[in-house]
Parts: sequence; C-alpha cells; structure tokens
Amino acid sequence: MIKTLEWTDEGVVMIDQRLLPAEEVYPVFKTYEEVAYAIKEMVVRGAPAIGVAAAMGVALGARNIPTNDAAQFDQQFQRVCDVLAGTRPTAVNLFWAIERMKTLYSNLKQDGLSLPEICNRLIEEAKQMHDEDVAINREMGANGAELIPDGATVLTHCNAGALATAGYGTALGVIRAAVEAGKKVAVFADETRPFLQGARLTAWELHKDQIPVTIITDNMAGHFMKAGKIDCIVVGADRIAANGDVANKIGTYSVAVLAKENNIPFYVAAPISTIDLQTKSGEDIPIEERPTTEVTHVKGAQLTPEGITIANPAFDVTPNRYVTAIITERGVARAPYKETLKSLVQG
Amino acid sequence: MIKTLEWTDEGVVMIDQRLLPAEEVYPVFKTYEEVAYAIKEMVVRGAPAIGVAAAMGVALGARNIPTNDAAQFDQQFQRVCDVLAGTRPTAVNLFWAIERMKTLYSNLKQDGLSLPEICNRLIEEAKQMHDEDVAINREMGANGAELIPDGATVLTHCNAGALATAGYGTALGVIRAAVEAGKKVAVFADETRPFLQGARLTAWELHKDQIPVTIITDNMAGHFMKAGKIDCIVVGADRIAANGDVANKIGTYSVAVLAKENNIPFYVAAPISTIDLQTKSGEDIPIEERPTTEVTHVKGAQLTPEGITIANPAFDVTPNRYVTAIITERGVARAPYKETLKSLVQG
Repeated sequence: MIKTLEWTDEGVVMIDQRLLPAEEVYPVFKTYEEVAYAIKEMVVRGAPAIGVAAAMGVALGARNIPTNDAAQFDQQFQRVCDVLAGTRPTAVNLFWAIERMKTLYSNLKQDGLSLPEICNRLIEEAKQMHDEDVAINREMGANGAELIPDGATVLTHCNAGALATAGYGTALGVIRAAVEAGKKVAVFADETRPFLQGARLTAWELHKDQIPVTIITDNMAGHFMKAGKIDCIVVGADRIAANGDVANKIGTYSVAVLAKENNIPFYVAAPISTIDLQTKSGEDIPIEERPTTEVTHVKGAQLTPEGITIANPAFDVTPNRYVTAIITERGVARAPYKETLKSLVQG
Repeated sequence: MIKTLEWTDEGVVMIDQRLLPAEEVYPVFKTYEEVAYAIKEMVVRGAPAIGVAAAMGVALGARNIPTNDAAQFDQQFQRVCDVLAGTRPTAVNLFWAIERMKTLYSNLKQDGLSLPEICNRLIEEAKQMHDEDVAINREMGANGAELIPDGATVLTHCNAGALATAGYGTALGVIRAAVEAGKKVAVFADETRPFLQGARLTAWELHKDQIPVTIITDNMAGHFMKAGKIDCIVVGADRIAANGDVANKIGTYSVAVLAKENNIPFYVAAPISTIDLQTKSGEDIPIEERPTTEVTHVKGAQLTPEGITIANPAFDVTPNRYVTAIITERGVARAPYKETLKSLVQG
C-alpha cells in the first residue's frame, strides 16, 4: 500500500514525489508554510492529493497558531487558508478542501467551541477527508471498471494514481478495480513531460502492483492508437467545468483528439469534488504556467541552449465533445454533461 | 554557417549532434565503419544528412580498400555499401545515396577506369552530393516560403534544419527563406522526445540565426494550436510513399492530426530523393525501433523505475489525408499525391 500522505502528531508526512522512482523518502512537513511549499514544489501533486494535503495544512496551521485570542486566531486562520489557496491555481480540489475546512471552522465557532476543541475537530476533519478520498476512489473504480474490456490495453497520461490521491487513484483506481474484478489489463503510460509523472510515478506504482505497464514518450501515443494497440484511454482531471470541459495535465487534449480520430473511447475519472459547477466552461479555468526550468533541465542537466524562450503551461483543457464519459464515485456521466454533471453533483 | 558534415582528406568531419547544444565538437570519422557508427548512433541524423554521410562513407570505404585486384575490390566495395545501408532502415535517402554511388561505380568500371581513378570520382560524387543538397534546400526554401504568411508563427517537430542536411535545412530552410524574403516569422519547436532534436538542435540553429524560437514539450503543441497561436506547421520527412503518406520523426502524426482538427495547414518539406515511388503507401515503410535507453535515460540520468517495458519507435507515418502540401525543390505537390508526386519525381 502506497502512503502518499498521512497526518501525524508531528506534522504531515508525504512521500517526496520529486525523487521517485530513484528514492523513496518520507519527510515530515511541520508547518502550514512547509505544506504550502510541498504543494507548490510538487512534493505532493495530483488534484485529490493536494486537496487532502491542503486540508491537513489548514489543520496544522490552526493547531500552531500561538494565541488564545479569538479575533487574532480568526485573522491568522484566514492567512493560513490564503497561503495554502495561493499555491496552485488550476486544480479545484485545493479550493474545495480549504472551503470545507473554513466552513467547519465557522460552524464550530458559531457553536461556541473552544479554540483547542476547534483545532482537534479540524484535524479530525482533515484525517477524515483523507480516508473519504480512498473510499471515493474505490467507488469510482468500481463504477469505471465496467467500462474496461477484459484483455484491454489502456493508455493513461500523467499520474492519476495512488500518488495523486490519498490512495488507490482515480484513473489508475479504475484500472486497479478492473484488475481486481479479474480482468486482464495492460497499461501504456505517457511519460508526461516535463515533470515525467508517467515515467516516474505511474510506472512505479503499477509495477509495484504487478500491472503490466509500457512507458512511451508523449508523442508516441498517437502512433500506437493508429496501430490499433490502445483500446481505451483513462485519465484524471484537475477541474471539470459545468459543461464537461476537462482541465488536466498538459497533453491530455492531444490524447483526446487522437483518441477521437481513432475511434477510441476517452474516459475521465475524477471525484465529485473535481466538478466545478461555478465554472461554466473550460475557457474560464485558469491555467498554471510553471517554471521554465522544468522544461530546460532534467535531473539537473540542461537540455536546451542558453537564452531560449520556453513555454510551460502545466494544464490544458479538453472540450467536452472529446470526452466519452466522466467516471465519478456517484456514477458515470455522459453527454449532455451540463445536465448529467449537475444531477450527479446535486446527488 | 553551420557545418553539419564535410569531406576532408583525413575522413568525414561531422559535428557530434549528440553533444549539442552544450558542446560543439567536430570529430573526424576515418573509416567507413566509423561513418556507419556515426549514422547508427546519431552523431549525424536527418534524412538528407545521413544520405550525404553515407555517400561520403562509401567514398571513404572505397579509397581505403587495400587491393588492386578488381574482383576483390568489387567484393569489398559491396560490403562497404551493405554495412552503411544497414545502419538505419527508415530514411530512404540513405539507400538513395548509396544506390547513386553504386551506379556511378558500375558505370566507371564499365568505362574501364582504374581503381584509383574510380575512387577519386566517388569522392568527387560524394562532395557534389553535399553541395547539391544545400542547393536543393535553397530551392525548396524558395518554393515553400510563399506558403508562410508574413507574421506567422510556425510550429516544427524534430530538427529538419541545417543539421539534418548538408546545410540550410528542409523545414527550417523554408522558414529561413521566408525570413530572407523579409517576412516576420516566429517558430515553436517541439522538444521532440526522446532524442530532443527540437530542444537541442532546432533551438540551437534558429537561435544562431536570430529567428525567434520558443521550445515546448511535445504534448503542448495541441494546446497552442487550439489557443490559436500556431499559423502553420512545417516538418521534414524521412520517406514519402508514392501515395503521399509521410514517415517522419515519432510524433509527427500527432501534430498532423491536431493541425487538421484545428484547421491549420500541415506542410512537409523534403527533397525529391525522399520520395520513394517504390513504396506504395506508409504501411510498407519499415519503422526503426531504437534502444530503450533513449527513453529511460536523459544525459546519463535514469528517469524510469527498473524493469519497466519501454517502446521506442523512432518514426511514425502520417497518412496523406493530413498533409496540406509537400514542398520540394521542384515545386509544391498537393493531393492527389499519387499523381502529383509521380510527375514531380519524373520531372
């Protein structure tokens, strides 16, 4: 069982995903600022995982506020939430998780609980969000597994696995559930430049689970689709707009277009918390631009000439017309997404 | 002026493209086996450049045959050609160049020339093929420049530049010619995993020429096309079948599909020697599978977990329906390619 992140009395323990697969290291992040750093620097990444990490960061920040004055506490609690919310702009789970912690805080305050009691309840909430996430992924997996044919080769992009969540995974959860249901499934994993989540993380965790995985560079996916080697695509999501447009790791849009061109089903697996009904369409989703060194350097080695312009958008948006279905813990949505997603969210 | 490869009395001098852009080193390859090694290991790469390198390798091999016996010479000459032809299977220019050298050899033998005279003529032929290639690229550039709008941003994949040819380039030759014609042109260069020809080579040579270039990872191309940032695509080719199907660096097919989906013209620039009328369609083009270490390692650093399956097809085939036009030194061909290519080749 892969431990992506865990609450301990000392702080939040997270596997440092930047070092995988070469090193398996579990540092403790002892302050909310350290948790914010871990999210920003991608020690932890993946929309559901950063949601849980942020919730734990809020709990940690609250616990460490050195005051008994309610008004001062309030101000500092707000600052904790703001700093954590400022780490990464695209994945909506981050904001969803922080909002859930803020709402709980407000309610407990209104109920007249003491600050230490409030802090304990915030910690419990964060831990519960961790466990809920695993349970949600298992339900999502069961819902999605039915879509994976026995004997299928599934292509995935980036890492939407145990490492992107509190455990089990979204897209890889669907694959795991299909395997657990007795199906024979093989995976093609895009290496996913620039951060190489596919080559480093997806390969690592599927290999641990003895699910056959072949790594390809991102630009090979189309070739293998055209060659008839891929039966379906399953990817995760960082934010799904009300109309079903999907923001996910850069390159997802290309995979979706190639899938459509080759008549291959393209599935998105994500929890309900990834669906953002407040965002009308993909055009309204902010796309994070990350440091150029992610593109120019690999493991410290410089690839590119000096003085060259680099672009590094971390995400792209796949318009809903390319999405065959969206797999959630509450069921599988299909077009017209504006209606089906709304009814899933409102449950 | 970039010197990709050059004949000298000592042997073939080639810039070691594996070391660019960090180091600019020009080793001498003194035997045909060394030239074969240089082609196989991608010291020199790019279809037209390996054609010229192979011709120089044939000349070098012939010059070094230590016999005055015509029959023995014949046998050893054949071996030189076979070894060079066995280096890389996809680019047809390699076979075209070796065939041209073999034909010349046969003719000179029939004409009764002495072995030293034959060797001198083979050397002259290889040097002429070098100069011809540059001239061809300039003509191709002039033909293609008309297709590039003033102010355009052109996306290219891999390196089809001076470094892929004897000089000036095919796809980048078209861009250079457009710039020389006074047009303002900016380039987006796919980094082109796994060998990073875009990030290392295209960026290096365009930067030298002060043509604005932005490096992106391969999986970003679709995102920028959808965002309206790309006005046209120009790529090279390793082999063009009689029906206009184009084998080129892995990832080209994906770029072509994304271009079509976004209504962006997709141009292929290649010399007539890249058109292989003997190959009916792309399905008949052999696709080279290269060592997995190209994918697993970058600059000596391992990216992937141990024991993972890797695929590394070096090329893919873009079906003719995605190709807006094929730019050659004899003019621009458009569909139906079966007719237009044949008439260009037969001149």
